[in-house]
Amino acid sequence: MLTRNESQQRIARLQERLVKEGVHSALLLMPIDIYYFTGTRQNSALLVPAGGEATLLVRKSLSRAKAESPLGDIRPFPSGKELPGVFGDASATIGLTFDAVPIQQQAYYSKVLPGRSFVDISMIVRDIRSTKSADEIGYLRKSAGLLASAFAQVPQFLKVGMRELDLAAEMEYRLRKAGHEGFVRMRAFNQELFGGLAVSAGAATYGFFDGAVTGKGLSAASPQGASLDLIKANEPVLVDFAGVVNGYIADMTRIFVVGALDPELKRAFYLSLEIQEAVRCAMLPGAICEEVYLQAAAIAAQAGLGGNFMGMPGEQSRFVGHGVGLELDELPVLAQGFKLPLQAGQVVAVEPKFVIPGKGAIGIENTFVVTESGGERLCDFPDDIVFLQP
Amino acid sequence: MLTRNESQQRIARLQERLVKEGVHSALLLMPIDIYYFTGTRQNSALLVPAGGEATLLVRKSLSRAKAESPLGDIRPFPSGKELPGVFGDASATIGLTFDAVPIQQQAYYSKVLPGRSFVDISMIVRDIRSTKSADEIGYLRKSAGLLASAFAQVPQFLKVGMRELDLAAEMEYRLRKAGHEGFVRMRAFNQELFGGLAVSAGAATYGFFDGAVTGKGLSAASPQGASLDLIKANEPVLVDFAGVVNGYIADMTRIFVVGALDPELKRAFYLSLEIQEAVRCAMLPGAICEEVYLQAAAIAAQAGLGGNFMGMPGEQSRFVGHGVGLELDELPVLAQGFKLPLQAGQVVAVEPKFVIPGKGAIGIENTFVVTESGGERLCDFPDDIVFLQP
Repeated sequence: MLTRNESQQRIARLQERLVKEGVHSALLLMPIDIYYFTGTRQNSALLVPAGGEATLLVRKSLSRAKAESPLGDIRPFPSGKELPGVFGDASATIGLTFDAVPIQQQAYYSKVLPGRSFVDISMIVRDIRSTKSADEIGYLRKSAGLLASAFAQVPQFLKVGMRELDLAAEMEYRLRKAGHEGFVRMRAFNQELFGGLAVSAGAATYGFFDGAVTGKGLSAASPQGASLDLIKANEPVLVDFAGVVNGYIADMTRIFVVGALDPELKRAFYLSLEIQEAVRCAMLPGAICEEVYLQAAAIAAQAGLGGNFMGMPGEQSRFVGHGVGLELDELPVLAQGFKLPLQAGQVVAVEPKFVIPGKGAIGIENTFVVTESGGERLCDFPDDIVFLQP
Repeated sequence: MLTRNESQQRIARLQERLVKEGVHSALLLMPIDIYYFTGTRQNSALLVPAGGEATLLVRKSLSRAKAESPLGDIRPFPSGKELPGVFGDASATIGLTFDAVPIQQQAYYSKVLPGRSFVDISMIVRDIRSTKSADEIGYLRKSAGLLASAFAQVPQFLKVGMRELDLAAEMEYRLRKAGHEGFVRMRAFNQELFGGLAVSAGAATYGFFDGAVTGKGLSAASPQGASLDLIKANEPVLVDFAGVVNGYIADMTRIFVVGALDPELKRAFYLSLEIQEAVRCAMLPGAICEEVYLQAAAIAAQAGLGGNFMGMPGEQSRFVGHGVGLELDELPVLAQGFKLPLQAGQVVAVEPKFVIPGKGAIGIENTFVVTESGGERLCDFPDDIVFLQP
């Protein structure tokens, strides 16, 4: 439950940025942005003037929005004729999150609010959301703990001869019973994910996903994650799942092997731990995100595995960590071209991984908070490969 | 796997509509629209000129797009400088699906393709996709069969005292093991769903979801579906899940009761069967969607349950069926205000339901194909309430 105090602080941070950018008001339409500022994700629109009180306009459900949110001004969604009155100043500049709001929405508001101009505030909203409060970090810790509880059970159900799909189903079942909320939100409009990846040799497959590993999936419509391939002995089984608690997403990857592991993969795994530690130490407020990535990529290159770092050779991703929170793909990104400094309280899933065609994918992933003493792990579940008897 | 022949037919249907509407080309950006026309949902953009060959421009993964799609012209995504050459005519009108494509995408293409104008082709694309081919209906049948296989197992695991969440986890586990692809796509930008609903008395809750039932969910961030409430004897347990096979979504609801059922709920259930049959008979090509809904609502009203039909009193949804296919919320909608005629081959999940505050939700849902002899069920799993011994 979002407190009134925290809701007001978040709204005040947005208003400060609106004033600075000369934007008269923000009109937030994405449910999860609205949840961040108000504590409810009911079907609604949130109007935040640069000064004064925010108003939540609710399509459905008004009663539930009122029960969930500490906001003072929660009203039924007005008609198109009434909207200009709610928005006031007819020459105002209104901020929308252009990254995620459909064109049709802008077309509607442009029509019913003639004279106003619309500007993109995606980066402002995403930046504000990227630094987490103590409450948010608490939820992320719970989410990481939920993941750890399921990862700890993998040795009980991982068997040679089961399908990747069976392994995924066992993980999903245990995560769900432990309180996983289900739907894992992603912001990028062409990305999507169902829970996570449970993949073996087929992890070394090209794919659309903006990560190191996509997996074969079950069809060309769902070309991601577990497939019907059987899990074999002596190959790395990569288990990469997202947890969701109160909407907050932690991300974790571990490697399991039934039998023994190819030496090249083993070397790549220990290199991924080395990179994780280098990234963790570099996760200081003020560090430039791109530089952290380049440092990680350099360690991979020096070890002769640059061509396998973060993806299939030729289609590698140029990142080593991604912000997490209410979405799996939040800011910041430890990525090529991302030149912004890290900020204290940002939360990043660090996931150095290597993909070796014909052999599989291997690596590590943990979620860290940026602090003055480097990355602070949300969960101390052991990193080591778990070897099981065939 | 989409055949070359079927891909060409689908593209030809789109081209015919583009010519008719005077649009020079379609630029499809939503992954599932691209999958429909090409057989791949890799991260890409599909350019369909009103005449001539379609081109798929792939960001990631090019090799996988080529392996999955029968399209002849599949290329790497060009730079902004190269794009005008790919698009040709500098004064052309380009169609985008304004309903789902973010503003930022239009801003990008407007910048790199100066002089072109952009128009909304959402309804054209959604209309084309709404009438299903024999192959598509085959996938939908498989999806309905997958659902039926899990619903048949409910009596094995439904117990008084288990949490709604436990029931959901058992359903999700069995669906997944049977080949459910996981992620259930919805098109409306403020709607989302994780698999389905497994809800008992808490089904009588207000919620954001554009359906009859939302459920309490696990938090205000995920205010939908199963909660931690315990399932009790003598109350209706509503199990409403989506299946996904090759991307195709069937939708099914059944009611389970441990013990006996309140007479008012029982009466509402049989009324929902009566409405389902009336809707099925009315599902003829040419029937006006709104009229089918109004007929259903009239039956509910005549029985004195108009105020409980399709949602909590005061926040009822004004529909009785929704198109399904690659998304859960396709055209057509048997809804107030939707005045288009039904077309042969459209597939609709018909779901008359009643919500009675304090008692729960009850109803039925099956997926039907519009044919010359009325709605044809995709799956003959029995409709009756399943009563279990306490």
